[in-house]
Amino acid sequence: MAEEATVIFQPAGNRGKVKIGETLLAASRQLGGDLESLCGGNKVCGKCKVRIEAGVFDKFGLTSSQAHASPWLEEEGAFISPGEREQGYRLACCAQVTGDILLFVPEEARAGKQVVSKEARSLDFKLDPAVKLYYVEMPPPAPEDPLGDLDRLYQALQREYGLAELSIDIHALQDLGDLLRRGDWKVTVSLWMEREVLRVRPGRHEHHYGMAIDLGTTTLAGYLCDLSNGEVVATASQMNPQCKYGEDIMSRVSYAINHSDGLAKMHHEIVGGINQLMTAAVEEVEREPGGIAGADSARTLSLDDIEDLVVVGNTVMHHVLLGLNPRHVAVSPFTPALQHSLDLKARRLGLRLNPAVYLHTLPLEAGFVGADNVGVLLAERPHEQDRMQLIIDIGTNGELVLGNRQGLACTSCATGPALEGAQITHGMRAAPGAIERIRIYPGEHRVDYKVVGKDAWRSHSRPQDMQVKGICGSGVLDLLAELYRGGIIDKSGAFAEDLESPRYRQDPETQMGEFVIAWAPETSIDKDIVVTQKDIRQIQLAKSALYSGCKLLLKHMGNPVIEEIKICGAFGVHVDKEQALIMGLFPDIALERIKAVGNAAGDGARLALLDHKLRQEAQRVASQVTYVELSGHPDFQEEFLGAIEIPHASDPFPHLKGLVPPEILEQT
Amino acid sequence: MAEEATVIFQPAGNRGKVKIGETLLAASRQLGGDLESLCGGNKVCGKCKVRIEAGVFDKFGLTSSQAHASPWLEEEGAFISPGEREQGYRLACCAQVTGDILLFVPEEARAGKQVVSKEARSLDFKLDPAVKLYYVEMPPPAPEDPLGDLDRLYQALQREYGLAELSIDIHALQDLGDLLRRGDWKVTVSLWMEREVLRVRPGRHEHHYGMAIDLGTTTLAGYLCDLSNGEVVATASQMNPQCKYGEDIMSRVSYAINHSDGLAKMHHEIVGGINQLMTAAVEEVEREPGGIAGADSARTLSLDDIEDLVVVGNTVMHHVLLGLNPRHVAVSPFTPALQHSLDLKARRLGLRLNPAVYLHTLPLEAGFVGADNVGVLLAERPHEQDRMQLIIDIGTNGELVLGNRQGLACTSCATGPALEGAQITHGMRAAPGAIERIRIYPGEHRVDYKVVGKDAWRSHSRPQDMQVKGICGSGVLDLLAELYRGGIIDKSGAFAEDLESPRYRQDPETQMGEFVIAWAPETSIDKDIVVTQKDIRQIQLAKSALYSGCKLLLKHMGNPVIEEIKICGAFGVHVDKEQALIMGLFPDIALERIKAVGNAAGDGARLALLDHKLRQEAQRVASQVTYVELSGHPDFQEEFLGAIEIPHASDPFPHLKGLVPPEILEQT
Repeated sequence: MAEEATVIFQPAGNRGKVKIGETLLAASRQLGGDLESLCGGNKVCGKCKVRIEAGVFDKFGLTSSQAHASPWLEEEGAFISPGEREQGYRLACCAQVTGDILLFVPEEARAGKQVVSKEARSLDFKLDPAVKLYYVEMPPPAPEDPLGDLDRLYQALQREYGLAELSIDIHALQDLGDLLRRGDWKVTVSLWMEREVLRVRPGRHEHHYGMAIDLGTTTLAGYLCDLSNGEVVATASQMNPQCKYGEDIMSRVSYAINHSDGLAKMHHEIVGGINQLMTAAVEEVEREPGGIAGADSARTLSLDDIEDLVVVGNTVMHHVLLGLNPRHVAVSPFTPALQHSLDLKARRLGLRLNPAVYLHTLPLEAGFVGADNVGVLLAERPHEQDRMQLIIDIGTNGELVLGNRQGLACTSCATGPALEGAQITHGMRAAPGAIERIRIYPGEHRVDYKVVGKDAWRSHSRPQDMQVKGICGSGVLDLLAELYRGGIIDKSGAFAEDLESPRYRQDPETQMGEFVIAWAPETSIDKDIVVTQKDIRQIQLAKSALYSGCKLLLKHMGNPVIEEIKICGAFGVHVDKEQALIMGLFPDIALERIKAVGNAAGDGARLALLDHKLRQEAQRVASQVTYVELSGHPDFQEEFLGAIEIPHASDPFPHLKGLVPPEILEQT
Repeated sequence: MAEEATVIFQPAGNRGKVKIGETLLAASRQLGGDLESLCGGNKVCGKCKVRIEAGVFDKFGLTSSQAHASPWLEEEGAFISPGEREQGYRLACCAQVTGDILLFVPEEARAGKQVVSKEARSLDFKLDPAVKLYYVEMPPPAPEDPLGDLDRLYQALQREYGLAELSIDIHALQDLGDLLRRGDWKVTVSLWMEREVLRVRPGRHEHHYGMAIDLGTTTLAGYLCDLSNGEVVATASQMNPQCKYGEDIMSRVSYAINHSDGLAKMHHEIVGGINQLMTAAVEEVEREPGGIAGADSARTLSLDDIEDLVVVGNTVMHHVLLGLNPRHVAVSPFTPALQHSLDLKARRLGLRLNPAVYLHTLPLEAGFVGADNVGVLLAERPHEQDRMQLIIDIGTNGELVLGNRQGLACTSCATGPALEGAQITHGMRAAPGAIERIRIYPGEHRVDYKVVGKDAWRSHSRPQDMQVKGICGSGVLDLLAELYRGGIIDKSGAFAEDLESPRYRQDPETQMGEFVIAWAPETSIDKDIVVTQKDIRQIQLAKSALYSGCKLLLKHMGNPVIEEIKICGAFGVHVDKEQALIMGLFPDIALERIKAVGNAAGDGARLALLDHKLRQEAQRVASQVTYVELSGHPDFQEEFLGAIEIPHASDPFPHLKGLVPPEILEQT
């Protein structure tokens, strides 16, 4: 037997040699496959299900006509039904390569195929991009006027627009002579910050493009904008390919600290992810009927047409993109490598676009309050408003800002990935088959739910049509409030003492209580989908981290009355305000004062892309926000423990009246 | 027989596979050998002589114990004596690879082994480099002061030195956190133009380095300088590896125009050459007893320690280095891609030094009057002087400047490579065995000469000790004047009508006259070394090009009296003033007013390295020099034809009196 074998992943088509004995999951990482794995290969999440294809090998040039994988493991039975096993399904973390093998990765196991809610909303902005277009005409050189090509261009820009002290990127310079002649000495110049020529195009052009990118721990989102009118011409999003190194930011930091090539690998992954994102955005434009205005040919746009790039992201994503080891930010006093904004040639990082183009990263506020939060400030502008507002941005890390024009304070809290569906028994990403809404009716314990990709709720569908696979983040957010309001769990989060329900039982092995959300016949995994006592604790810990962050920020600001709560990101879109209030995610407030503001971080990046003056403003505001460090705070422990309860043990929640049955509210 | 064979070049050790049937010359180019070839493989120069080594193959891992090359060609007999043939000598352009082969490249055939006269002379300068060192100490971060690492550094630089609005190169940033901590928050910062951090070193450092480089068509020369005191700590020079694409700049331009990958190849060569040059300079420092002050460890210096780079060169070298196609500069109106100076990250071009470091190229004056000539202006400063001076810089291209503080004019003239020994029957580079000085005594036609590497002249040596191989540039420069003064040729350059000398004869084949400089027994090539009528014409054309350039410049300036002539470069060092005057290389002047100024172009680069303010001055002066284009000048044809004569047909040469016998001067 050879020491290596060929592995092919379909439908993506990644292929290559891997060592005999590697798991299929390891093969996927090695060959750039996009296999989902929440547990990191520990055989406990069941997300990395793949199908081994047999008998079709010849057309792929494989040397064997037999599928080669190690024998079935018992653990796989927990996630793969006998019928699926019959069809060739395996867990990629269990099956090892023993020979050439062709795999099919089902939609649900593809890390890149999540449903991502990061659409662009419309923004108010003043259009003043860092890169602007200047059209100039020049006299051609002549024996009596043999001035150099670049000097001639500078002269024309000075004469027509008063632009002086110019420089040019070497990439733009290298083609200049030919482009000037091809344009018959009439060209359009893309000028960065009124001082550096990035690109010269023959003839007159009226459009040029830039991209704003939000690097989330889980998701990358990009907005391709027409810099001549500010319009979003394409949006793109995808999973952060770093996810294979861990779900939350602390596991990414650990990977960078514990592996000598960890930073380099993750850097490479995120750069590759941004390259894919840019390519996807450019291709989306091409698919538009009628194409795009101002592209070099009438209907196509290329990566070369992206002339400016603004990136936001949390501190760890920001650092990893820049090739900065986040190790020092992980330990007290939590100092980032830099807080300042940065301009650098994007190509220096391996980004595959026009080599002349700059990448601008927004500044950080402090430690884990990153450039994404500065994006939020640019989009929401609390520093210009009278209303005292609390802005909550929760991804796999929570960032909070409180204040108004009198001053702002911020903090970060380690909510962990539970609120996004990870670390939950049946948690999964927001892919088809994921429960995204849950209702539990008090008294009868009737459960209703809705899955991603289907409009009808369970109560209006046939059980076998639901094909449930798990519970995604927004479903998890419903859980705590519904279990509490439905009387399934008490204020402490424990299953109610006298709970009697066909849905409630104890796991015979672990002796741990669990509550059935969907019965096996409603699922595609042929087993009940449950929420366990441990799952409930995970959600409580996450919400407690967030709540105590809010409380300590309020205390820092002298306990002002919150006049508005803004919830950013997919979280804000998916969370039900009422249930967020019931579970005690944040301090009590009237429902109408809670506002979902979408991907404010990405919006801030777009604003900084469209109006470069906002970049200076971002720098100024970021440096003025006071950072409140939670971990060292004397009151943190007490606040955190109190906030474990649903809602906080001792805080008043007047607005819960009417939302929760009085007998439940009055529990002690 | 296999389709490929292994070829090894000794002593350099380059080895690799080449196709059967390739010539050894082609193999040398492919494998990065440094074989000399003046004729470009046309079997007429005989420079590419190599020795095929037999019977020593096993230790090199060759698969055959026989030397494999195609049969002897008749053409080779013209350059290889029967004795040499016996020893295994072949012309690399004739012998084809037929199997594995081991070659020895003799010193004389090595392109890289020329004797280069580009030593550093001492200069007056004000030390104000673009990169300066700043030592700072910072308080370490603490819970109450968790400022980011870079922000902390900026704060310290602002506090200690008032430096504001700073930026940092991403490469310097990537290691910053670790370096600050390693230095216990005490570091030395290398700051470019008081605005960009290029490098941070832990602890206190008082030395840092930069390199000034002069890109000649034939030779690359570099000066490694200590930027903290201005001292030259190492010099390095080597052949321009582009030489394989042609001897003079026009053949390089042709190569760039006629080959789709021509520019890329030549760019790659010159970048590789500069990398070698920098490495050689750094290694020279290492060999110094006692090492070098301020290197990271006490005795070593690395490429990372070169923190600034200034490059001058003629327009074609300048363009090729920057990846700019020189095609437009080759045709009327001879416009360069740019005249402006340029700052760019050296790493963008593939230069292997600290990726943060900038390369500064000095501006060009016009068309073929390149950055090297601007270097000359910085070194000689004619724009600040009252004396009317003519500055002559001759490499394979002639660049002339005339003027004083009232104004300057410049031109370039296509002298071609004849004055450097190319295109001459027995021309060669200044390597051991090359005739570098010639005297011919009137009347008796006795010839005396001196060769490179031997102190004694021919007349004081035994014939067999001379081991002459050819005539190098400085020998060629003697030729015309000596032949003329000796009565061998007349004023028109033709062999004297009634010439009778044992050294004079007609080639039986070509019917062309030739004059023997060295008899076969004095040579190592076993044949007479001669100068032919055609050789003499080549030298006349070159000197005429230069002379007519001087004349038209003078005319442009209203025919002022030249008060000083400065001759730059190796040419200036080697040329005998008296003979230059006799041959009519430039207008008549008293001998004491002729001055050799060494490698003024390289000196100018060094000055711009040591005092960055001179970079702005260079830009200003370069843009104020008036360019006089010769090819379109109405008087050019007439001046050029007149200047063919020795000296110019109708110009007065009062200072020749006493230098040339009256009967010869009075020829018409």
